[in-house]
Amino acid sequence: MASKMDKAALDAFLVQEFPQVASQFAVEDVGEMTLTLRLIAAEQHLRPGGTISGPTMFGLADVATYLAILAMIGPAALTVTTNGNIDFMRKPAAGVDLLCTARVLKLGRVLAVGDALIFGEGQAAPVARAALTYSIPPQ
Amino acid sequence: MASKMDKAALDAFLVQEFPQVASQFAVEDVGEMTLTLRLIAAEQHLRPGGTISGPTMFGLADVATYLAILAMIGPAALTVTTNGNIDFMRKPAAGVDLLCTARVLKLGRVLAVGDALIFGEGQAAPVARAALTYSIPPQ
Amino acid sequence: MASKMDKAALDAFLVQEFPQVASQFAVEDVGEMTLTLRLIAAEQHLRPGGTISGPTMFGLADVATYLAILAMIGPAALTVTTNGNIDFMRKPAAGVDLLCTARVLKLGRVLAVGDALIFGEGQAAPVARAALTYSIPPQ
Amino acid sequence: MASKMDKAALDAFLVQEFPQVASQFAVEDVGEMTLTLRLIAAEQHLRPGGTISGPTMFGLADVATYLAILAMIGPAALTVTTNGNIDFMRKPAAGVDLLCTARVLKLGRVLAVGDALIFGEGQAAPVARAALTYSIPPQ
Repeated sequence: MASKMDKAALDAFLVQEFPQVASQFAVEDVGEMTLTLRLIAAEQHLRPGGTISGPTMFGLADVATYLAILAMIGPAALTVTTNGNIDFMRKPAAGVDLLCTARVLKLGRVLAVGDALIFGEGQAAPVARAALTYSIPPQ
Repeated sequence: MASKMDKAALDAFLVQEFPQVASQFAVEDVGEMTLTLRLIAAEQHLRPGGTISGPTMFGLADVATYLAILAMIGPAALTVTTNGNIDFMRKPAAGVDLLCTARVLKLGRVLAVGDALIFGEGQAAPVARAALTYSIPPQ
Repeated sequence: MASKMDKAALDAFLVQEFPQVASQFAVEDVGEMTLTLRLIAAEQHLRPGGTISGPTMFGLADVATYLAILAMIGPAALTVTTNGNIDFMRKPAAGVDLLCTARVLKLGRVLAVGDALIFGEGQAAPVARAALTYSIPPQ
Repeated sequence: MASKMDKAALDAFLVQEFPQVASQFAVEDVGEMTLTLRLIAAEQHLRPGGTISGPTMFGLADVATYLAILAMIGPAALTVTTNGNIDFMRKPAAGVDLLCTARVLKLGRVLAVGDALIFGEGQAAPVARAALTYSIPPQ
């Protein structure tokens, strides 16, 4: 199954459809049923202790998995998250970007499911894992 | 078990420890093992279709449950979320604040667990449900 | 919204459709969008330490929520669980039945979502909480 | 980090500590931070429609991840599951065993986290994904 959107198309989609958050993210890599997204770490993402907040990591996993799905099915912006689950496993190092690699595990007609691992850039052990389900609107 | 922080103490805690997000939230009500938090809806919270984004709702549930726990144990800012799970069940109406009621189900020495329901203000059916686990640092 | 199946109808449904497990469960109470199910504790449910195993409690929450949904929509046996999430919060006391109260939070055309609390009989603090999503087959 | 229990030690542990369920499972493969477990499909695991039930798959993922952790830390039977999350993505084919591959993502002093994919034997697409958290008792 070939991708329908490449890195440039996904970056443009993000700017157009998610203007509130597009500048925080950059698509690093897109493959068949997988995508890696960078969170450009900034002050607004931090929580007490100086590390990136949980909701920021949830958002990173959500956007990465969403884009991994859209890369396969095309720009269906109204695809919505119905369920998300995340484990925060380690503190990310301060001052580094986060990289999230999502993979699509099921791409059904109505539901899609993916999971994701988040790493601090240059670090070997994952800081978080997540799984997300999406409802795909009828064409 | 009596609360250790009231509404005023929790609002002050939020401003001091979470300056990035404190202005988005207001504590509505605190009780024994329960707390209701308001998300003051704004442009930055929206996603395509004009409704409040999933990561914003995850953050609302996380902050509400975290404050419900701190109300009971006192201002342990380094309490961290270890797991979160959320179902997005309905679209919130556009232009209304969200209200999240969290309840603490377990308050252990090391781990605390709570769950939360999120409603659009003035609406009867919940827009999301969540459950969160926290690791409490040793004193 | 009125129920379509009462306690007797649900017990009969369980015997007919789930003969492998029906004898382990008894419907205690059915209401609008809520149901309480008893797990009749037995040797086969135990894990090291003599308490009821996690998968047994997951099954209890799943069957309780499934029956709470069927009580509302009628005997759609092919309704399937698509997602489940559970926190095991306390050890149940040895030798007591478990009671699980499920509530239906969303009853859509295609997806239904519920959550559940599990108690040891006669105990005040919940031993587990769960949330489950179901896909409802087209009529 | 070297394993502390090999396939034979894990099979023996299962028989001794989990006599209720040991005959349903067989360890297929153990590696560093990973383990594959077989569910020997039987009548007792089925649900309406003739496929393996959700709670059975939850139990498979739970036992696989638990054994993957014990392989690394040794036979700490009182390690307990604190949280589990599972997506049921496809119907397993009727009459085939299930294979579950778990990987340990975090092995802390107090908490361990892993995830798992379940496949019908001989099938390429996963039928379920899960993530589980364990509390490790002090030595």
